[in-house]
Amino acid sequence: MPPRETMPEGSVAMETNINKHSYPRLMPDGSILFRLRAPEAQRVQIDICGEKYDMQRDDNGVWSGQCAPQVPGFHYYALIVDGVSVTDPASETYYGCGRQMSAVEIPEKGVDYLEIKDVPHGKVSTVRYYSQVTQSWRELCVYTPASYDTNPDKRYPVLYIQHGGGEDHRGWMQQGKTDIILDNLIAEGKCKETIVVSTNSNVTAGMGGYKWEGMLPFRSELIDNVIPFIDKKFRTLADREHRSMCGLSMGGGQSFYIGLRSLETFSAVGIFSTGMFGGINGAASMEIDKEVPGLLSNAKEYNDKLKVLLITCGEQDMRIEHNKRVVKQMKDNGLEVVFESFAGDHEWQPWRKSLWRFMQML
Amino acid sequence: MPPRETMPEGSVAMETNINKHSYPRLMPDGSILFRLRAPEAQRVQIDICGEKYDMQRDDNGVWSGQCAPQVPGFHYYALIVDGVSVTDPASETYYGCGRQMSAVEIPEKGVDYLEIKDVPHGKVSTVRYYSQVTQSWRELCVYTPASYDTNPDKRYPVLYIQHGGGEDHRGWMQQGKTDIILDNLIAEGKCKETIVVSTNSNVTAGMGGYKWEGMLPFRSELIDNVIPFIDKKFRTLADREHRSMCGLSMGGGQSFYIGLRSLETFSAVGIFSTGMFGGINGAASMEIDKEVPGLLSNAKEYNDKLKVLLITCGEQDMRIEHNKRVVKQMKDNGLEVVFESFAGDHEWQPWRKSLWRFMQML
Repeated sequence: MPPRETMPEGSVAMETNINKHSYPRLMPDGSILFRLRAPEAQRVQIDICGEKYDMQRDDNGVWSGQCAPQVPGFHYYALIVDGVSVTDPASETYYGCGRQMSAVEIPEKGVDYLEIKDVPHGKVSTVRYYSQVTQSWRELCVYTPASYDTNPDKRYPVLYIQHGGGEDHRGWMQQGKTDIILDNLIAEGKCKETIVVSTNSNVTAGMGGYKWEGMLPFRSELIDNVIPFIDKKFRTLADREHRSMCGLSMGGGQSFYIGLRSLETFSAVGIFSTGMFGGINGAASMEIDKEVPGLLSNAKEYNDKLKVLLITCGEQDMRIEHNKRVVKQMKDNGLEVVFESFAGDHEWQPWRKSLWRFMQML
Repeated sequence: MPPRETMPEGSVAMETNINKHSYPRLMPDGSILFRLRAPEAQRVQIDICGEKYDMQRDDNGVWSGQCAPQVPGFHYYALIVDGVSVTDPASETYYGCGRQMSAVEIPEKGVDYLEIKDVPHGKVSTVRYYSQVTQSWRELCVYTPASYDTNPDKRYPVLYIQHGGGEDHRGWMQQGKTDIILDNLIAEGKCKETIVVSTNSNVTAGMGGYKWEGMLPFRSELIDNVIPFIDKKFRTLADREHRSMCGLSMGGGQSFYIGLRSLETFSAVGIFSTGMFGGINGAASMEIDKEVPGLLSNAKEYNDKLKVLLITCGEQDMRIEHNKRVVKQMKDNGLEVVFESFAGDHEWQPWRKSLWRFMQML
C-alpha cells in the first residue's frame, strides 16, 4: 500500500464528494483543488462559475488544478477532457444545465439555516402522477413536515415551488435543501408547517418564452393536473388562502404569470431572480400591467387578494437592476410588494435564502 | 434551422435519456446507437456490460458508435474519452460502480411487472436519520404503499432491502423500480401491502469482507439504528413475524449473515446473486454451518423460525453454480430453501424479478 498522502493544511473534502473521495478539496481561502486521472488526455480543465482553469499533468497521468476562491454556496461545475465537458467521477451529480452536473458546496460562515440539526425532520417523497398535458406518467417531489406522519388529522397549507431553466423537480429538494430549510424554520417556530410541492415544468419542447401564451401548457400542468392530484393525495388545506407559489429564474417568471394571474388559486407569490423583467430577453420595457392585467392600474384589487408578494434577486446577479426598477414601478403604482436582495450571483445561495425569507412571510 | 434528421427505422430513444435527447437509441435487434460531440478528442469508446466499442468521428466532430445487441434490462454504461471513463451527458445518472454512471433500459417483451400502470401508486421517501455507527446524519429510502396515506390506522410489515457493492440506498428505488413492482403486485392482490426500507450499507471504508466480523458495523447500523428509527417514524408491525430482509450481491451476503443470524429480528430472508458462496473470493468451501451456526446441523430450528428462505441467481451469472451447490447442501441437510434462477447476468433484471418473486412468498 502506498504511503497515505498528506493533504494540504486546512483543506477539507467537499461534502458533495461521493465514495469517500479526497478531491475536490476546499482550501481555507475558498479556492478548490481538483484531481482527475487521465493519462492519455492532452488537456484537462476545470469549468466552474463561468471560468475555465487549466489542470496540470503529473508523471502518473493524474491531473491537478485549482480554481480561484469561490463565494459560499452551491456551484455547478464540469471537467473538460480534450474539449468534452464531463462530470467529475468524484462528485455527486445534480440535474442542471439540461444535464447531470457535478457540484461543490461551500459552507457559509455565520449562518446555520442549511445545517442538518437535531430537530424533527420531515421527508421528501417522489410521487408519480399522470399528466393530461404530456399524456404520460411523470414524477414530482413533495416535502411533508415531521408532524405530517404523527398527526393524521392535521391538514397543511401548500407551497408550489418551481426550479429554473435546465433544472427539474429535483432541484429545490437536492440543490435547494428545501427540507433542511423548512425543518429548521418549523423547529424554531418561524414558519407555518407547510407542504412543499416541486413540479417538473419542462412540459414543452422549448421554454415557451416569457409571454402568457408560452406559460399556458405549464399553467395547465400545474393548476389542472398537479394541484387536484396533490389535494387528493395529501392532507392539504385546499383553498387559495392556504396555497402559494414561488420559483427561481424561469420558475420566477412562471410565478409572475401563473401565480399573479391565478389569484383564485394562490394567495401569495414569490418571484426569485427572474430575468423576465429585462436583462435576458431584452424585455426592459415589459408592460407588466398588460402581462398581468391591472397589476399596476388596479393595484388595490391585487393588494386585497395577495397576502404576500415577494421579489428577490442576488446582489451580484445582472438581473437585479431590472428587478429593482420593476419593484419601484410597482410601489409607485401602490402595489404592495417586498423586495429583498442577498449576496450572490444567479445561483442557489440567494434562492435558498429567498425560500427561507418567503416561508417566514407566509 | 438544419433539416430534421431522419432516425434509423424502428429505433427509439432510450427511456433513460434526459432533456429529450434522441441518442442513445435502441435498435429493433437490441443493439444501441450512441453519439457524442467531441471535436478535439482522439478516441471515443462505448463501455457497456464489460465490452468496449470504438466510436467513429464525422466531419463535424460528432462521434457515433453501436454496441452489440443487449439482453433486456438495465445496463450501466460509460463513454471513454481519450482514456477517461465518463458519463454520457444525454443519460440520466445512477449511483453504481462507486460513482454516478450512465445507463440504458431495454424493455423485456412479454412481461409488464415493470410498467407504470393506472393502479394506486405508493411513494418513495428520502428520510434523514442520525447514525451512531457513522456518527453522522445519513439518508435512507422508504417505499410506502398507496394505502399508507389513506388508511391512517393501518400498520404494515417491513422489508429491509440491500443494494450491491458500489451502489447505495437509491439503487433499489431507481435502478430496481421497487415502487412499480410493489404497486403492481399489490394492485393484483399478489403480495401483502409492505413498507420497503433501503439503507446505505457503505458504513465502513471497505466492504468488511464476507465474514461475520466484517458484517458487524452494518449489522449495528441496520438493527440498532435503522430498525428502531423506522419503527418509530412509520406505522410498522414491529415484530419479527412482520419483518424480512433481502439483498443483491453484497446485500445478499449481508442478508445471509445478518438476516439468518438475527432470527429474533427477521422471519424471512432473500439472498440474490451473492458471490459469497464462491466464485468471487474463492470461498468455494465456505463452511456455512460455521458462518451461520447450526444452519445445516440444526436445520429444524431454522425451519421453525424462517417463514421464507429464497436464494436466487441470474442464469448467466458465474455465481450460479456455487449458489446451486450451496442450495443442494442446504436441502441435503433438511433446510427448507427455495431456489429460483432468472435469465440474465449479474445485473438488475434478475434482481427485480427476485424481489417480485420474494414479495409473493411473504
